[in-house]
Formats: sequence, C-alpha cells, structure tokens
Amino acid sequence: MNRLTHLDESGAARMVDVGGKTANARSATAEGRIAMSTATLQAVRDGSGPKGDVLAAARIAGIMAAKRTGELIPLCHPLALETVSVDFAFDESAIRVTARAALTGKTGVEMEALVAASVALLTIYDMAKALEKGMVIEQVRLLEKTGGKSGDWHAT
Amino acid sequence: MNRLTHLDESGAARMVDVGGKTANARSATAEGRIAMSTATLQAVRDGSGPKGDVLAAARIAGIMAAKRTGELIPLCHPLALETVSVDFAFDESAIRVTARAALTGKTGVEMEALVAASVALLTIYDMAKALEKGMVIEQVRLLEKTGGKSGDWHAT
Amino acid sequence: MNRLTHLDESGAARMVDVGGKTANARSATAEGRIAMSTATLQAVRDGSGPKGDVLAAARIAGIMAAKRTGELIPLCHPLALETVSVDFAFDESAIRVTARAALTGKTGVEMEALVAASVALLTIYDMAKALEKGMVIEQVRLLEKTGGKSGDWHAT
Amino acid sequence: MNRLTHLDESGAARMVDVGGKTANARSATAEGRIAMSTATLQAVRDGSGPKGDVLAAARIAGIMAAKRTGELIPLCHPLALETVSVDFAFDESAIRVTARAALTGKTGVEMEALVAASVALLTIYDMAKALEKGMVIEQVRLLEKTGGKSGDWHAT
Amino acid sequence: MNRLTHLDESGAARMVDVGGKTANARSATAEGRIAMSTATLQAVRDGSGPKGDVLAAARIAGIMAAKRTGELIPLCHPLALETVSVDFAFDESAIRVTARAALTGKTGVEMEALVAASVALLTIYDMAKALEKGMVIEQVRLLEKTGGKSGDWHAT
Amino acid sequence: MNRLTHLDESGAARMVDVGGKTANARSATAEGRIAMSTATLQAVRDGSGPKGDVLAAARIAGIMAAKRTGELIPLCHPLALETVSVDFAFDESAIRVTARAALTGKTGVEMEALVAASVALLTIYDMAKALEKGMVIEQVRLLEKTGGKSGDWHAT
Repeated sequence: MNRLTHLDESGAARMVDVGGKTANARSATAEGRIAMSTATLQAVRDGSGPKGDVLAAARIAGIMAAKRTGELIPLCHPLALETVSVDFAFDESAIRVTARAALTGKTGVEMEALVAASVALLTIYDMAKALEKGMVIEQVRLLEKTGGKSGDWHAT
Repeated sequence: MNRLTHLDESGAARMVDVGGKTANARSATAEGRIAMSTATLQAVRDGSGPKGDVLAAARIAGIMAAKRTGELIPLCHPLALETVSVDFAFDESAIRVTARAALTGKTGVEMEALVAASVALLTIYDMAKALEKGMVIEQVRLLEKTGGKSGDWHAT
Repeated sequence: MNRLTHLDESGAARMVDVGGKTANARSATAEGRIAMSTATLQAVRDGSGPKGDVLAAARIAGIMAAKRTGELIPLCHPLALETVSVDFAFDESAIRVTARAALTGKTGVEMEALVAASVALLTIYDMAKALEKGMVIEQVRLLEKTGGKSGDWHAT
Repeated sequence: MNRLTHLDESGAARMVDVGGKTANARSATAEGRIAMSTATLQAVRDGSGPKGDVLAAARIAGIMAAKRTGELIPLCHPLALETVSVDFAFDESAIRVTARAALTGKTGVEMEALVAASVALLTIYDMAKALEKGMVIEQVRLLEKTGGKSGDWHAT
Repeated sequence: MNRLTHLDESGAARMVDVGGKTANARSATAEGRIAMSTATLQAVRDGSGPKGDVLAAARIAGIMAAKRTGELIPLCHPLALETVSVDFAFDESAIRVTARAALTGKTGVEMEALVAASVALLTIYDMAKALEKGMVIEQVRLLEKTGGKSGDWHAT
Repeated sequence: MNRLTHLDESGAARMVDVGGKTANARSATAEGRIAMSTATLQAVRDGSGPKGDVLAAARIAGIMAAKRTGELIPLCHPLALETVSVDFAFDESAIRVTARAALTGKTGVEMEALVAASVALLTIYDMAKALEKGMVIEQVRLLEKTGGKSGDWHAT
C-alpha cells in the first residue's frame, strides 16, 4: 500500500487512530554516529572516563528526549515507555550510539529510539563543538523493531 | 586549546558562563538529509503539494524544536531566538533540509539550527515509516555560523 | 449533585481520583470559530492552498497542544491519546475548526478536544494578526462526548 | 499590505525575523468569557471565595500558559515576559476574564495575553464541566496593545 | 542486594525495564516543611484565606509538577497518574506540606509525591522570599508507599 | 514592608512587573543535603566514580531543571540564565549539593538555584531508593545572592 498513514484522504495530517489495536510488547533499536577528528575523539574520551561527564550527559539527554518524543514529533502518540537505554562505542574517528526503547502498548517505539540516538549525538556535538565545528552526524537509522501487527523487522 | 569547555577542571559538566560576553548578531545554518527509495520519495512529494501536509508538518516540527533546544541539550543556554526557518529540497533519492536560526545574544545558535534540521528529518521519517523503515538520516552538520568572538565559520 | 468535583470538601483543588473507574473507549469532539473580515479570510485561503502553510500549521499546533493538555490545565490527568484530528471549514466571514480526540481510558477527553480547537484558532490568529487584530474567537464548545459512566452527550 | 507575514514568498511558514527591530516597552490586553447557567455560576462563586480554589487555579493556569506561548503557537518567538496578570469578573450568566502581558522586547505580546485568557477559560470549563458540559467560550479577543513600530491599537 | 538499580553492570545510567512487572494499584505519600519566622508565617496565612492565593498557587504548582516528574528526574518512567493531592498545615514556625499520588501501573509513584511536595514548598519560598530569604526547606521525605512487588512501606 | 509581592491588593496572584527595573549582573547560590545510611552513601560513591553515572545524572538533572524554573514555579519570570553549575560533596552520612545560577537581568535567580539543588537531590533519591526509602532531604536554603536593587545577601 503506497499511502502515508499520517495523512487522511484529503491530505490533512492527523494522529493515526490506534484505538482498535492490541497492546503487546514492542521494542525498537536505533543507531547513529558522529564523525570527528582523532584529536576531538581523544578529548571526548578524556572527558568521559573517571574524570568527566561527557558521555554521561549525552546518555541522560538521549533518555530524557525519548520520553518527550510525543512533544517533538507532531503525529507521534504519547507513550508510556517501560525502558530506554543509550550506549556508546568508540570507532576510529567517530562515536557510535545505540538506543533501545520498549513498552507494552498499541503502537511501536521506533521514533523514541531514533529521537534518543539523535539527541545523544547532538549533545556530543554540543560538548565538543568548541574543538571542532565540522563534526558530522551520520547513519541515523532503525536497526530493528519487534512486536506489533507488522511483526519484527531488521535492517539489512 | 584542547579542552572541552562544558567541563570544569574536575570533569564535571556545567553550563558555560557567558555573562561576560557581548551580545551581538549571530546566526547558524545547518543541513542534513534523509535517504529513501524513489517510491517513498514520490509518496512524500504527493503528500506535500496541494494535497498534503508532510513537509509543512516537518517544517513546523523543526521550528518548534529549535525553540526548545535548551530543554533538550543539557548544557545549552535558553535563548531568545529572533528567527528560525526550515527549507526542503528533493534530491534523487533523498530529501535535504536546511535550517537557519539567528538572534542578537551572547552565545551562538549552532545547536538550534542542528536541532531544527534533526527534528524535521525525524518527522519525515515518522510520516513515511509505514512505507519504508530503512530510511537513513545522513550528513547532519553545521554549514556556517556568523557572529561572536570566534568569528564566522564555514564548512569546507 | 451540585458540586465541583475538582475541589475537596475544604475547597482545595485536587486531581480527581479515577483509580476505581473502568478503562473504556471514550471520544470527544469540540468546535470553535474565528471571525474575520472577508479580506483576511481570503488571505488565509491563499496561504493555505497549494501555496501556503497556514492551516497546516494551525492543525499541527492543535494536535500537539492536545497532547499537552495535562500540562496546561492544572487538574487534568495525563492521558495516552489514541487519536487526535483537527479539521477546518470556511464560513462566509469566519474559519470554523472541529477537533476530535479519543482513547481507551479511565477518564474523558473533552479537555483535549477543546484545547486542540482553541490552540488551532489561536494559531490562525497569530498568522493573520498582521492583517487584522480585531479577529474574535467564538463559540468554542463541546459538540459531543461518547463513552464513560456518564454516557454519551450531545450539544443541543 | 495584504500578506501573511509568517509565510515566505513560497508560502512556507517561518518565524519572522525580528533581529532588526528595536526593543521597547510593549503590552497587550485580551479578554474572553465563558457562558454558563446561573446554577453553575453560583457553584463556581461558591468554590472561589473563602472556601475554594476555582478561580485561583484558573488564574495560575493562565499565567503559566502565557509563559509557554512560544511552545504552543508554532511561529511565536520565545519571549522574556516581564509581567502577566489575569483577572475575573462575574456577569449574570458568564465569567469574564481579562489577561494582560508586558515586556521590553522586539515583538509584541498579543498572543501571550490571548493564550492566558484562553487557558484560564478552559480551566474554568474543566473544573465546572461535571455540572454543565454545554458551557461556551466566547468573545476571546485582543482589547488593546501598546508599543512597537505599528503603535498602539484598541479594539473598537 | 546492595546495587543501584538505575545503573547497568558497567555503571551506565538507564531507565529500568518494568515491562515484565504487573500493573497494580500503587500510592505514595510524601511530606516536607518550610521553616520561617512568625511574621512571615502570618503574612502567608493572611495571603491564603479569603483574601489571597498563596497556598492555592503552591498546591496547583505541586500538582502540576507531579505530572511532569518524568521530565525532571532523568530515569523516572512517564506515568499516567490517577490522582494527586497536596495539603498544607501550619506549624508554629513552619508550613508543612503533604502530597499524595496514586495510579494503577507497573512502577511506584514515590518520586511523583516527593516532587509535588518539593515544588509546593519552593513555590511558598518564592511567594514569601521578599519578606524573608532565610526560609529553610526541611524534612522532605517519603511517608509511605503501598502496592508493588516490594509491598507496603512506612517511614519509622 | 510586610507584604507578599506576588499578590495584588485584592490577594490575587500575579507575576510581578519587573519592566521598570534595571538589568544588571545577578547570581544566587543555594545548598541542600540528602541524609542516608553509610551503606547507601557507599553505593552512591561506587556508582559515581570511574564506574558510574549517579552524580553525573543528578548534576545534569539539576542544571536542566534550573532552566525550567519558570515552568515549575507559577509566578517566576522566564529567565535567560547565563550559567548554572551544580556540585556535590560527601559528608559522613549525607550528600551535600551546592547550586549556583547567574545572569544579567531584571530579576534575581534565587529560585533557579533552589530548583537546581532540589531536583539534583531528588534525582539522588530516585537512583538510590531501591536501597533505602528513608533518605531525607534537608537544609535546602539560599546561601547567598548578589546584584539587584536589594543588594547582596548572605545566609547567617
């Protein structure tokens, strides 16, 4: 079906009615990365170990933003998230974030995972931008979702 | 200077003190894109012309999110934005967003422009995800900033 | 019973306890209008067709505000809305808005529908106020509600 | 000039650039009313004197909403309000609200006054709706504005 | 078990997964007090009877803040509160607040009750600080909780 | 003068008009503590060093809450904070928090510092409550303020 579900037949945006759907366990995992120079990467590492709060701040920001997805994305339903987690890994010239959200509900949490990943990456940008303004956020995408009528899905 | 300005000497996060800075005109422009199949792109086009609200919703979402940057990014200052705009262009297999923010103030608006671009892209993902879950948000970056003590900056 | 349910016996405001109520399907529809001159009405029409975002912005604003009803109205419960829609019609010298909200829950969504209608109308005012400051918001009222122990209700 | 200032030449919504405007003292006063039966009106009176919180709750809700106008109305600037007040008067079969906002800034506060009045009226509706669902919000309009390049304005 | 449940095995903060828990009736009651001089206490009393809004404002602020606990406390779940109430009592040189929250859900509402009490006390501070800046907020603590797997708990 | 400045002559709450005041440099420092057992204190220490995020989360929560003071405390002005910092110290059986806020503006930031301290303490409670529900928040008070017409003030 080649239709945008968030538009009614006249093209008007609306919040899709999920009233008739069944509440079941759903999860979503998203990822993304922020590319930066080796020097900036080292500074973030130095500010994230015993001595600093950089990744802790980015993790908290991502988790808190996931809870506000319904305020940011116009047609998202307000959801009672049951868990959110945000993890980081260091690549050679990038920091990779993975965010996972889950709930028992009538609609999926893809957007919540994507918002968590995006805001965590933006927070890293904010904290390191005095060192390097040219950092680039890349490859923000859904990795997998589980649950719901459309079933599980995994990125290829 | 190889230091993260948002950490104090002990590594603790803090909101940088801009009290001693001068208020002057500052702007920032950010961009990003969301890659999708030709079929999805066509559906968004169809939902954004005379018949639909897709890009209008994404634009409004980006503008509204820019105003809430200080709530989303932990160490950003709350700012009195004087203008925000969000524009879209269709590439062959992607939609490109450009966001611009400006104010007269003591600190820059890079994060506001980046947040506007990110949330506009996430909104497009939300509205088209029933058609294609594998869309990827890419190349979210600062294009240029003007004003402030550090002067103008342009992406290379 | 001639009592305000949001006050306890001493007159103190409180959020009414709905813990003992049954969750069932509930909906509410509200309407309102904003009166304006023919010239302003024409400008809004011109800014809402193929060429402009006026009513799309008002629709998005109404939907987003409905989700935040619990933050705006002190004694409203935070609710997991399952759908919200906002529609417009042009009268001779006014724009009429109809807003509908629904959920499966323990309390009704009358306030969510009324907030959506009010904020959509206020957004139209904002976008057209450079043309006419004397526009008037009128007849904001509940049209009908369904579900809940008190049963269905229709405006006379 | 017959143009909607919140749309650019292509019809896209944007937050108008006020960067070039001068900051000066501005105020706005808005009013509105909620019509109800004599019995409901008496109940609100009884719940608003020494014994109850009804109008206090509505006043606080209106003041708090005014501060969040920039979050509710998509193209409003975030503003540093310097004062907000909300007052009530009892008519024979209605409660009338008057809201006033002021600041020293680059743009007017009409929307802040209108939002304060609207949310105060909606809060009264919420608190009295168990008694009467047919209450109607009417005559929400700007009474006057002062300051700014366009000068003072008074409703006729 | 001597472990902080909000940290994973690597020490990273996360929102605890409550997906496997059972939804049941839960409540929490918290209290606190704000110490002040006899003269300030009298002024608050005078501003809270037939003539003033002080405690009504503090009550509304506490109730509204409880609904936003998930936005304020990073790892709290967003919860569908079913009731919140805030009450005050005058001690000789302090005002005591008691806040109660309840819901049917998978996790407890201790934080909601504590946030309501804290924000109510902070609001009293704000309204009386022109008279006495040295007021002190004290003894903010959980009084009891009911429901949940860990069972009931009462302060000793 | 024995008057509550947030009430008008009729006792109605209002946001005090600061339009006529001069913008100058203002700061405020607040403190508070949360008392807990030695065992809980040790667990928080263990979760706050190289291995954990506890105090980083509390610090971020305090800073973010300070920015939202105007949304939480009904009659507070929305303020453009120029810096916020939150620090912790371990006592024998308590964790002490000190929060400082500053801006150049027309009104003081006492509430912002108090809100930051309170929310940081509440966040510690949340993260450690699985270990000890009887923790008590104490001695939340203003330590000093500088700037403004009323001049500097220090707690005795």
